[in-house]
Amino acid sequence: MIRIGLALIVTAALTVALAYTALGSEQTDGDTAPIFGIKIPAGYRDWRLISVAHEEGSLNDLRAILGNDIAIKAFREGTYPFPDGTIIARLAWDYVPLAESAQAFGQLQSFVAGPPKNGVQFMVKDSKKYASTGGWGFAHFNDGKPADETVHKTCFACHEVAKARDFVFNRYAP
Amino acid sequence: MIRIGLALIVTAALTVALAYTALGSEQTDGDTAPIFGIKIPAGYRDWRLISVAHEEGSLNDLRAILGNDIAIKAFREGTYPFPDGTIIARLAWDYVPLAESAQAFGQLQSFVAGPPKNGVQFMVKDSKKYASTGGWGFAHFNDGKPADETVHKTCFACHEVAKARDFVFNRYAP
Repeated sequence: MIRIGLALIVTAALTVALAYTALGSEQTDGDTAPIFGIKIPAGYRDWRLISVAHEEGSLNDLRAILGNDIAIKAFREGTYPFPDGTIIARLAWDYVPLAESAQAFGQLQSFVAGPPKNGVQFMVKDSKKYASTGGWGFAHFNDGKPADETVHKTCFACHEVAKARDFVFNRYAP
Repeated sequence: MIRIGLALIVTAALTVALAYTALGSEQTDGDTAPIFGIKIPAGYRDWRLISVAHEEGSLNDLRAILGNDIAIKAFREGTYPFPDGTIIARLAWDYVPLAESAQAFGQLQSFVAGPPKNGVQFMVKDSKKYASTGGWGFAHFNDGKPADETVHKTCFACHEVAKARDFVFNRYAP
């Protein structure tokens, strides 16, 4: 009975561990984006941080780049090209001044994330399925709805300038 | 035996769940910062994202605000004041132009996180232990080493301007 008990403990532990992994990286939500057939990965807002960015100009936003477990491992270990199953999420928010900044620093110098802006984007690595676009599928969603085909045709052309880093602009911020 | 087996499964599942929680939020690393007696929480780089920010001026950095599970739950539910056990981490990196930005956008407009800069800071909520500073303990580390007492004396005075949000500058970025 002790052996059966131990086997059950191991099984239960594995089940919990696998359930946790699946929760973050395999379920999907809502409508499918055109061309690459990608849905919003469920739970992506809980993924770990890869890096942060600020776009000046007309985009004028603050960004966070998050990754699923495969992505985080690859970034940390410097694995290029990224392995199949990698998903990178790009979130963005309005670039807004922090009201208390001038009081805290003597001048307005702090800018923080405001409401969501410029949509949410995903890169999904599947070297066979997306062979013609460097192994990456791309998806852009505005307010949870996929952008149209025209938008999705621009993704790879832009990312090609980062070909030396497997078409990924961002580096891991330690 | 089935009942014992089920009890073991539940016990094992709870053990795994508790071990996972403890790993992220309760262990600490290295030297203790002065005044508030805070060490670097182990695994904080794996915490979930609260928000992002950019400091202009002499700080000139890009920031990420991460939180332990208690912090994330409180931010998402809008709980003020934050419950005891909340830990908020402020990471920062140099504000550097993305080399490929001009090529991708036709002008240099993308700025990304470079090497770590301006240290790592933590706010730890313990309403009894830190009663004289709004229930918050503060800690600042440069390259893993705590800053001196003089630095730590400035924390609460600055955060007081955000008293209406329980002394926390950042809001949750959805």
